[in-house]
Amino acid sequence: MHNALAEKFGIKYPIFAFTPSEHVAAAVSRAGGLGVLGCVRFNDPEELDATLNWMDENTDGKPYGVDVVMPAKVPTEGTAVDLDKLIPAEHRAFVNRTLDELGVPPLSDDVEHATGVLGWLHSVARAQLDVAFKHRPALIANALGSPPKDIIDEAHSHGVPVAALAGAVAHARSHVENGIDIVIAQGYEAGGHTGEIASMVLVPEIVDAVGDSSTVLAAGGIGSGRQIAAALALGAEGVWMGSYWLTAAEYRLGSAADGTSATQRALLAATSSDTVRSRIYSGKPARLLKTKWTEAWSQPGAPEALPMPLQNLLVAEAHQRIVASENPDVVAMPAGQIVGRMNEIRPVADTMGDLVAEFEATVARLNNLGG
Amino acid sequence: MHNALAEKFGIKYPIFAFTPSEHVAAAVSRAGGLGVLGCVRFNDPEELDATLNWMDENTDGKPYGVDVVMPAKVPTEGTAVDLDKLIPAEHRAFVNRTLDELGVPPLSDDVEHATGVLGWLHSVARAQLDVAFKHRPALIANALGSPPKDIIDEAHSHGVPVAALAGAVAHARSHVENGIDIVIAQGYEAGGHTGEIASMVLVPEIVDAVGDSSTVLAAGGIGSGRQIAAALALGAEGVWMGSYWLTAAEYRLGSAADGTSATQRALLAATSSDTVRSRIYSGKPARLLKTKWTEAWSQPGAPEALPMPLQNLLVAEAHQRIVASENPDVVAMPAGQIVGRMNEIRPVADTMGDLVAEFEATVARLNNLGG
Repeated sequence: MHNALAEKFGIKYPIFAFTPSEHVAAAVSRAGGLGVLGCVRFNDPEELDATLNWMDENTDGKPYGVDVVMPAKVPTEGTAVDLDKLIPAEHRAFVNRTLDELGVPPLSDDVEHATGVLGWLHSVARAQLDVAFKHRPALIANALGSPPKDIIDEAHSHGVPVAALAGAVAHARSHVENGIDIVIAQGYEAGGHTGEIASMVLVPEIVDAVGDSSTVLAAGGIGSGRQIAAALALGAEGVWMGSYWLTAAEYRLGSAADGTSATQRALLAATSSDTVRSRIYSGKPARLLKTKWTEAWSQPGAPEALPMPLQNLLVAEAHQRIVASENPDVVAMPAGQIVGRMNEIRPVADTMGDLVAEFEATVARLNNLGG
Repeated sequence: MHNALAEKFGIKYPIFAFTPSEHVAAAVSRAGGLGVLGCVRFNDPEELDATLNWMDENTDGKPYGVDVVMPAKVPTEGTAVDLDKLIPAEHRAFVNRTLDELGVPPLSDDVEHATGVLGWLHSVARAQLDVAFKHRPALIANALGSPPKDIIDEAHSHGVPVAALAGAVAHARSHVENGIDIVIAQGYEAGGHTGEIASMVLVPEIVDAVGDSSTVLAAGGIGSGRQIAAALALGAEGVWMGSYWLTAAEYRLGSAADGTSATQRALLAATSSDTVRSRIYSGKPARLLKTKWTEAWSQPGAPEALPMPLQNLLVAEAHQRIVASENPDVVAMPAGQIVGRMNEIRPVADTMGDLVAEFEATVARLNNLGG
């Protein structure tokens, strides 16, 4: 599976793994892919700095990337307290009523209440990037379109390529004009922020549209070597996998004492039909695991989601309560349709081995049909 | 591209082409694929009989298939006149008002008014199959789930395999239990009746679920050799392509004197973003070209679509008026996201040649990455 792109990054396989977990990201890099740490959860730059120190020390000198989330349209800036004032009372009442109806208890008094994700504010993402450049990122990715030009220029001045997501050809063309090095063609089936065009159509369209101006990774629906072979058949030079790592053994965010979390148990039980594309997580359309929580927002009488960044601030404490309640039926988690193939908690190295072996078997099988 | 499935059908390539046009179906069969004639438009069995006579004489002895549409839940039976009485007046008023607003003129007095599609009534589909078995179909496909058991048995008694669409693993499992020979995994991106799971995820899921019990074709988003290679990488043994043949040079349904139609001009101009999944064509969710007509049905105040078969009877005359108006902005046509790659009117044989050549180039490219 080694190709020119892998060679360029100094990795064995062109498998890029987006994950909010530094443990998973490091394990992917050690196993021959490129682990890309999602930074949006780090409201505190010092916490990110410490985490990247850990990455530097736990990746055996292998490259890794970092991922920020800067929306093209700069969202309303402000502290969490200021922004909180913009949230309508009826939205808060709906959230509290829904949590009560779903049997999600309030937080106990001794727990510090979460402020919500501020990483998609440009000010916070810039602080995250300032920290990142003090380390040795091999890639800066923006999980929403092109970042501002000065960020691209700064990354290039450090010799670091920049990647951006695209859900349509027009986005990809715009990224290339903005100087983006790697376009991640994110299909409809992907978890998190996603558009409406499925990978089978989107990937070759974007490959044809950008030509030699940019490298294309395929994202969405990938969790097996057959799917990697399909993505490369469609013309991508590598794959960007996100959801699939949420059930990695190394993933520990939100875990209880036994090592797994209610979220992981919900992911293991879900089929490919158990996701929904909704604005309730961040304010922009994102594919989430379908649970009683997401269903409540699609009932008659439920309010419309607020714009980014307000929606996540609205539901931040709800997410914290949901995690604490440890109920797999009430989970708030971005996940793609590949969740139907996530049926086991496995170490990253085992998964990587299977992906590569199945890819090679698939290519051999196809080769018997060519010519 | 020749494989065991192609061998079994006596065709060169495992490319199955669904089309309502006998001219396109015959051209595909002559070019080495399997043309599958959509019968749902034939309310009159004698017209179908004459068309299949034409197919018998114009396929150079090559095999072809026929496609009917029998919903699993038997729809309300009745003549067009009886069924018409079940359509609410407010729905009729909305259709007439919308056509007026879109500038679609009434039919001239000398035109015979269409009754609408009755082919999805079981009684009509059975009559179509009675006709088909007098000819030499190599495949009976049902474009909606398993047909009734006696139909499957009759096909098998003629030595004809039966195919059915599946949009989820559960449908595929049920098809296998019902004795279906070929499961067509129809992804979200497909034109016409379709589910919510994209091909990248759906195809390998269905392949794994049915195992050796059935053959799997991939449908949805296929219009290039790269996409055929991707479908086969995902584990399908062949592909089922529908939308892509709507811009074949041989396609003549609804054409004006110059040989093309407003529908074809609309298809040529559309991008992959210009489709919508809606119940307004047949009463069941189907992906259509997005036009001013489909947009009108998603405006506030528009009525909900009626169940099958009433919805198509409701819009039958509207469809006829739309075709007569020859306005590419107001078109009512099932089409998949692959429409973005349909940019030229081309003879079927040229398209087939390109599909095969690009498939072989793709396999050769992948082969350099394997091992």
